[in-house]
Amino acid sequence: MSVFILLNLKTYDEGTGINAVKLAEACRDVSKDSGAKIAIAPQTADLYRVSSKVDLPVYAQHIDSVGSGSYTGHAYIKSVKEAGACGSLVNHSEKRLTLAEIEKIVTMLKENKMASVVCTNNAATTAAAASLAPDYVAIEPPELIGSGIPVSKADPDVIVKSVNDVFKINPNVKVLCGAGISKGEDLKAAVDLGAKGVLLASGIVKAKDPKAALYDLISLI
Amino acid sequence: MSVFILLNLKTYDEGTGINAVKLAEACRDVSKDSGAKIAIAPQTADLYRVSSKVDLPVYAQHIDSVGSGSYTGHAYIKSVKEAGACGSLVNHSEKRLTLAEIEKIVTMLKENKMASVVCTNNAATTAAAASLAPDYVAIEPPELIGSGIPVSKADPDVIVKSVNDVFKINPNVKVLCGAGISKGEDLKAAVDLGAKGVLLASGIVKAKDPKAALYDLISLI
Amino acid sequence: MSVFILLNLKTYDEGTGINAVKLAEACRDVSKDSGAKIAIAPQTADLYRVSSKVDLPVYAQHIDSVGSGSYTGHAYIKSVKEAGACGSLVNHSEKRLTLAEIEKIVTMLKENKMASVVCTNNAATTAAAASLAPDYVAIEPPELIGSGIPVSKADPDVIVKSVNDVFKINPNVKVLCGAGISKGEDLKAAVDLGAKGVLLASGIVKAKDPKAALYDLISLI
Amino acid sequence: MSVFILLNLKTYDEGTGINAVKLAEACRDVSKDSGAKIAIAPQTADLYRVSSKVDLPVYAQHIDSVGSGSYTGHAYIKSVKEAGACGSLVNHSEKRLTLAEIEKIVTMLKENKMASVVCTNNAATTAAAASLAPDYVAIEPPELIGSGIPVSKADPDVIVKSVNDVFKINPNVKVLCGAGISKGEDLKAAVDLGAKGVLLASGIVKAKDPKAALYDLISLI
Repeated sequence: MSVFILLNLKTYDEGTGINAVKLAEACRDVSKDSGAKIAIAPQTADLYRVSSKVDLPVYAQHIDSVGSGSYTGHAYIKSVKEAGACGSLVNHSEKRLTLAEIEKIVTMLKENKMASVVCTNNAATTAAAASLAPDYVAIEPPELIGSGIPVSKADPDVIVKSVNDVFKINPNVKVLCGAGISKGEDLKAAVDLGAKGVLLASGIVKAKDPKAALYDLISLI
Repeated sequence: MSVFILLNLKTYDEGTGINAVKLAEACRDVSKDSGAKIAIAPQTADLYRVSSKVDLPVYAQHIDSVGSGSYTGHAYIKSVKEAGACGSLVNHSEKRLTLAEIEKIVTMLKENKMASVVCTNNAATTAAAASLAPDYVAIEPPELIGSGIPVSKADPDVIVKSVNDVFKINPNVKVLCGAGISKGEDLKAAVDLGAKGVLLASGIVKAKDPKAALYDLISLI
Repeated sequence: MSVFILLNLKTYDEGTGINAVKLAEACRDVSKDSGAKIAIAPQTADLYRVSSKVDLPVYAQHIDSVGSGSYTGHAYIKSVKEAGACGSLVNHSEKRLTLAEIEKIVTMLKENKMASVVCTNNAATTAAAASLAPDYVAIEPPELIGSGIPVSKADPDVIVKSVNDVFKINPNVKVLCGAGISKGEDLKAAVDLGAKGVLLASGIVKAKDPKAALYDLISLI
Repeated sequence: MSVFILLNLKTYDEGTGINAVKLAEACRDVSKDSGAKIAIAPQTADLYRVSSKVDLPVYAQHIDSVGSGSYTGHAYIKSVKEAGACGSLVNHSEKRLTLAEIEKIVTMLKENKMASVVCTNNAATTAAAASLAPDYVAIEPPELIGSGIPVSKADPDVIVKSVNDVFKINPNVKVLCGAGISKGEDLKAAVDLGAKGVLLASGIVKAKDPKAALYDLISLI
């Protein structure tokens, strides 16, 4: 099973500090048990704690386009990498970046042998992002984020069009499906439409039993 | 000796990851040996690592004005606090915030019993910041940051005026002096002008021997 | 009657282009007829058109803190002034600025003999803004903007506290009351609480008969 | 002669207010006399004044991605169009936008039958911008802006690569060459490399005799 599941913990209390470690442990258990390819994106302050305690791929939620120098309060790729991140979200809808920054950060991630997941909001921006050759493009129509309505149901065409357009531009770029994904049928629908995985958050992070929610998520693939 | 020394590691490679831990150890050694009141502000990704390994007050470089929720790539106060920070810089010249955000973050820091150090750029903004009742206001004329020219020499009047204005507005707010501070004479001059401490960065972080630089810094007080 | 009424046209279609001119004419007619002190803040692109056709004080909605030089897409004070503006809103809740920018723009407006109206969101930021000595501070709790619920009813204490705090800091700074104001009783309540005027928008701009709405607004003072 | 020359007045005093009108007149005279296709991009506050007095295509320097509504201090496309603009710069290096905003604004410009000129900083972002199908992509390596060193000399490869990549993605998108262009040889070099025109600023705006500078600019094509 090569479907990629990336869990964004956002700033939910249920995914902050010690709770981030617990969620990472749940992901690790389900991943080991099922063979599912799961990764977690905790807050920057939690990266070291999670990566040093749990054997699971850890992503940053954001990296700034800065280098070593006079920058205060920025997420510098070197500190994020040394804290254990093996990749990063880029341009999440809650942390939009300029086109110039996206291009620079994707390049920085490649130079650091880290995976890049560029988030986009529609088919046109997905095509633009694909031309920058990241590892993944995650399409998330903003109006569906946190809605509980999966994009694979609400707007399957945007997935199909994105998958086709990205393939034409760069067949090495994989499309993830975000926004409203939480159940097994959502993941299956996304994969059936051509997505190589999903980016999700509240559906798992805020679930009463996150481990059970993860098992449900992967139940149909 | 009640002078407060706050060392901002910025994103300097010399203060990133394991280097942040080493600089924190140097600060701790000098602090224990001399009684000087020293704190360190590493990058967000290094907070947990530094605070869990070194017995020294740790500050965040920045906190976002967000709560628990759908926020990606933000520095949420709860994760920063759980990672060991006992305070935070606010509105550093390299991470300017809106007035509404500054007020909200100072309030959030108080509610979390964390110290607030609001950075400002001139006497007028220092007075405005003092009216928000943070623990400290750190005045740093932007043109002197990283210049090696101490504000206490280049523009002593801005310190004197700031100290006087802040005292009138709220005598509990302490003024720190930033920008270009690195030597013992700089710190002494700042204190003589009424400052209660200093905010500094490259002069120590990029010193060949940071521990020696710290001893020099506190040599005249 | 010295109460100041400042009408922000925002980007409402009803206040764009030729409609801005028509609203300015309505304001002028009511002002001339009643003696009320009314000013209008159209969009930047409409400043010249409105100011050259209607005899009424015209304010900018925003000015950037830039000078002459390599700045593209910014609202430079000199172009705004030459287009006829005699003042500007600063830090509106829909265009928040950093503390350093607010201070710089208030200073630039004074140097250009233009009036400054700094917008704030609560009593604490109102006090901070007053310490920068603008002509006006306009307090607008963001949750009430466009709500139709006047701040003078929903939270009279914030007005009273703001008026008192501002008076202590700088008695020359006048407090305006924004957010949810549209009727004569709202304006009267604001004035009774110590405000020297109001900042308002949709209540007049989107009224079926803006001139009648203006007459109603000033009916109780 | 179908080469397109777009003159960005930025916030230069020499291109502000009445000076914007004078520069527009110079452009118009040279255009009428020579047949050169020249357009001008004044500040937002000067759009109406320039377009109503001079018969020359006028572009906005920037448009915000907002519609009619509660937006203060934004450049709303409808007011900009009604003030006489027939197109707009998008994502200038001095006004960078998020990828989502660029896509939205290019779409808004098409819907309003206005021309779009998306600025980019290197070959990769030029390709990404081209996939959004604007009328023009203007490549301007930021380090050369205002340098007096033409990109066509400093880095001809970036032009050639951009022209080729854009052609593959969408042959209808035309490439403009920006940054450091001011003389006839610069324009000729850009055209020889495949550009369809130039975006320029200080070389003409700050020239002692802008009309003579414009004649020199078009002398070799």
